[in-house]
Amino acid sequence: MAPPSVTAFERRRGMVEECLLRFLDPGVCRMPEKLREAVEYSLAAGGKRVRPVVLLSAGSAVGGDERELLPFACAIEYVHTYSLIHDDLPAMDDDDFRRGKPSSHKAFGEAAAILAGDALLTEAFRVMGESPLAAKEPGRAIAAMAALARAAGAEGMVGGQQLDLLAEGKEAVLSEKEEIDLRKTSALLSAAARMGGILGGGEEARVENLARYGRALGLLFQVTDDILDETGSFEEMGKGVAKDRARGKLTYPAAFGMKTALARAEALSAEAMSALSSFGEEGDALRDIVRIVAARRS
Amino acid sequence: MAPPSVTAFERRRGMVEECLLRFLDPGVCRMPEKLREAVEYSLAAGGKRVRPVVLLSAGSAVGGDERELLPFACAIEYVHTYSLIHDDLPAMDDDDFRRGKPSSHKAFGEAAAILAGDALLTEAFRVMGESPLAAKEPGRAIAAMAALARAAGAEGMVGGQQLDLLAEGKEAVLSEKEEIDLRKTSALLSAAARMGGILGGGEEARVENLARYGRALGLLFQVTDDILDETGSFEEMGKGVAKDRARGKLTYPAAFGMKTALARAEALSAEAMSALSSFGEEGDALRDIVRIVAARRS
Repeated sequence: MAPPSVTAFERRRGMVEECLLRFLDPGVCRMPEKLREAVEYSLAAGGKRVRPVVLLSAGSAVGGDERELLPFACAIEYVHTYSLIHDDLPAMDDDDFRRGKPSSHKAFGEAAAILAGDALLTEAFRVMGESPLAAKEPGRAIAAMAALARAAGAEGMVGGQQLDLLAEGKEAVLSEKEEIDLRKTSALLSAAARMGGILGGGEEARVENLARYGRALGLLFQVTDDILDETGSFEEMGKGVAKDRARGKLTYPAAFGMKTALARAEALSAEAMSALSSFGEEGDALRDIVRIVAARRS
Repeated sequence: MAPPSVTAFERRRGMVEECLLRFLDPGVCRMPEKLREAVEYSLAAGGKRVRPVVLLSAGSAVGGDERELLPFACAIEYVHTYSLIHDDLPAMDDDDFRRGKPSSHKAFGEAAAILAGDALLTEAFRVMGESPLAAKEPGRAIAAMAALARAAGAEGMVGGQQLDLLAEGKEAVLSEKEEIDLRKTSALLSAAARMGGILGGGEEARVENLARYGRALGLLFQVTDDILDETGSFEEMGKGVAKDRARGKLTYPAAFGMKTALARAEALSAEAMSALSSFGEEGDALRDIVRIVAARRS
């Protein structure tokens, strides 16, 4: 497989980085200083910004204007960031580090961490609702907001975290593991692709294909994450990524063997690509994201 | 002052009670059983449903159809309920009881309580976004959702809780106390009135009057709450309401004297009424709510 071009990805990632704090600027949102510190700390902590880049790439693939989609792209990153802050809390996964830095509750205390998460989740909907695109195309904006809420809520991400906590230490069952991954990781990535399709004005069939693409990409993302947990590249090891197994969390290779995990990753890559079959060149950036995510395991 | 008629209030409260769980029905939202238990426990824990009733009454005052507004009314109650669950957490106000029953984290554990709050906040936006009114009047729905997010977020309720925690044990300053109340209580009640006005199709000046009404009502609500904390009626005493003072939390009468507190309540009642001056009979239900809230202190 040829090495994927990361140019489009990096360009869009740069666009997101540039706006991520701007939509929470004191001129737009007067938040108490302590809350702002905690919110900005977690937003600035890095990450690949995969979800917003998927949203922008999907929007662009159906002919949307990326600039108009940026508030929605940042909103999905706020939702992702809030979920990391809350997942790290002592009562949840109890992680002291996130991306090599102290997690939010270690840096600011538990109360501030809970509130920073709550704020990010809420501000995500404010930023989308107050966006120029929401004024121009309220129907599309509403549909995108509803899709994000459904993916992030009790049926999706929050429900997945609940199931994940309940599964800790239990014997692994393949169907349960995929149910958790579908809710916890895949729902939000699928929503990112779906939102891009809706906001870019894509017709329904294309939007559904994009959602299917995001769903497979999300599962792939989780499998490669689990594989990294096991193989533990030097780069990732020091960053606290490899703790899931130690905590008795269900990882794919630990539960079902590395061979099954690698085969599943291959199948999911193929599934994501096949969901894009109706897209020509305009889908290339989305295809590159599949390759970028898949390449994480090597 | 004549005793307020509670008929309209009780009728609307009944409408809200009827729908509160229905919008989270398994047919609409497949959430894990444990999460559902925690979510439904807190929603069923009672309360006066003031925010949704204000929303419906404001909508009706500008000619809106209450039935269409119900998803938004329930959404604001979800947001209020999430805030109570998170405020009660050990890292926050550490309350073991809420309305005479064990608080969420006491009944279900901290992780489930955090997730139940996260779920309610997120589902609020799903229920609004998927409502029939959002399909029919997406512009109004977007504006209402943005208003709720702004009121509930870092500038409003979440920011208020952060300031409240920072103020604990500190000497009381009147301007700071009102700043906290404005964010923590008043913002959401003001949003309820504003949302009703927007969704009911009210013209801008009327919507602003409704928001002003809700702002004063919210401050009144907090002052009467503080007065109840001090006088501690028998009904409320056993329910853990009177703990704020013991915890060194800033209450109005404790900090500035009962006389000042009672005078402030009078002034806020008058302010709320005056914001309704452009409303005729159609504003009577909103006026009754002021009387109902004010009467809590007797």
